[in-house]
This record gives sequence, C-alpha cells and structure tokens, in this order.
Amino acid sequence: MDQRVSFITLGVGDLARAQAFYEALGWKPSKYGAGEGVTFFAIAGGLVLALYPRADLARDAGLADGGAPAFSGVSLSYNTRTKDEVDAVMAQAEQVGGRITAPARTVFWGGYVGYFTDPDGHLWEACWNPKAVVADDGTVSIPD
Amino acid sequence: MDQRVSFITLGVGDLARAQAFYEALGWKPSKYGAGEGVTFFAIAGGLVLALYPRADLARDAGLADGGAPAFSGVSLSYNTRTKDEVDAVMAQAEQVGGRITAPARTVFWGGYVGYFTDPDGHLWEACWNPKAVVADDGTVSIPD
Repeated sequence: MDQRVSFITLGVGDLARAQAFYEALGWKPSKYGAGEGVTFFAIAGGLVLALYPRADLARDAGLADGGAPAFSGVSLSYNTRTKDEVDAVMAQAEQVGGRITAPARTVFWGGYVGYFTDPDGHLWEACWNPKAVVADDGTVSIPD
Repeated sequence: MDQRVSFITLGVGDLARAQAFYEALGWKPSKYGAGEGVTFFAIAGGLVLALYPRADLARDAGLADGGAPAFSGVSLSYNTRTKDEVDAVMAQAEQVGGRITAPARTVFWGGYVGYFTDPDGHLWEACWNPKAVVADDGTVSIPD
C-alpha cells in the first residue's frame, strides 16, 4: 500500500444539512455525485472529502451503527498560517452551526489549537503549528 | 475556510501497535514527532496522517470518550488504479492484522469496493472507481 489516502468520507445523518454546513464555511461541492445521495468536495492536494449518509456507510462497510458517538476517535485538522486565523476559523465554524468543544489555546508544544464539531459530531481541529508549513496551494509539510 | 484538510488524526489505544500496522502496510513514519507520543505519516498530496492516543485526543478536544464504537462514522478510502489492486490491498490488510468487514465486490455505480478496519477499528475502504483517476503521485481527481 502506498502512503496515501484518496477519500475522507464522513457519515452524516442529513446530507442536505451537512452539505449546507460546509458550503457555509466557503466550500464548493463537485458536480460529480450531486443528486446521487453523496456530496464530494475536491480538497487541496488531490484528495476528496465526501459526505455520505451514515446508515449507508455502515451498511456498505458491513458494520452495525450504534449511532453517532460523542467522540468518534477521528479528527480532521485545518492548519492555518497564523494564530489569528485559528480564531477566525473557530468563530466562523460556530457562526454557521458548529459546536466549539475546546476553545483555542496555546498548547505545550507551541501550537495554538481549538476544536469544534460539525452538525454530525465530526471533529475538526483548527491548528496553528509553527513547524508545519502551509503552502500557497493549501498543502502542508512537516519537518523531515 | 479554504477547501482543505491538513491532518487526519486517528485516535489509537496502543500507539506502538497502530504504528506497526501501518508500517506493515509499507508506510514510513516521519522523524518529526517520533518519541513524543505521536506518529506522523506524510501522505501523498501534502497532508499528514497522524496516530495519537485516543484518550489524549478526546481530552484535547474536550470530549468524553465512551470507547471505540463498532462504527465511527468515518471512512478513509484508498483508491486503486485497477480492480486487482483492491484484492491485493484487502489481502495485505488482513495479513497484517486488519479485519475484513466487507469483502470486495462490484457495486451498483460500477466500482469495486471492500472495507477493512485497522487494529483500533478505524475504517478503510479499498476502492477502484473507474471515474476517479489516481495519478502517478498518488493524488486523486474526480470529474468536474
């Protein structure tokens, strides 16, 4: 297996609500998939973030869905180029219906980090990491 | 918010075990983070997949951890260039300790798809999608 991920799929309870949340954050869905029960967002770096009904994902994967847990065990991080941008992301997320679970604060390793969840409880981290460089094209690199 | 994700963090119960699983799939961790309670894998396209203790992630995020659910609601997809490669990925994942939750099969939209979980229950999809092109550098593109 090569060292890569192609799609990040978030199982959602209400596809229209979930899509509206990401659109309110400024994202634009692809036409591909539209009207077919799934929403794709082509994200920087050549990956895709997909929104797909939670029940369908569980069924496809052969797993029993016990309902959305408070903590899924997975976090997606949005790294920023400045500390101030973390505050802006947290404010925007809250404004469009996200839930702040941990307000932004400086952490022991020198970063500035906050957490919020989307309407389905999927966890996002807004993170300024002075050692992780966010390029102009939105991709990120860490030290070797 | 730009349309991007920087880090995908998987909360794990045993960091050494989780790292060993991904190394057995052929992945190489970064030196950055090594020995500091986190494992980073720089993945194709300029993102990072991180393994981080589940309890620490829940604490950082301000969420109560009810334990790993059978179905987290999130799936990571590894798209392949051929159908046969899906079978190879599924076999390799099982061989190194993954659990097949849905054997690979042809699905209604024309793809060939199987699911497995890693030792912490994180869900992966091995997927051949005839409309999603996997480039030489491992990045993926979907139709406009």
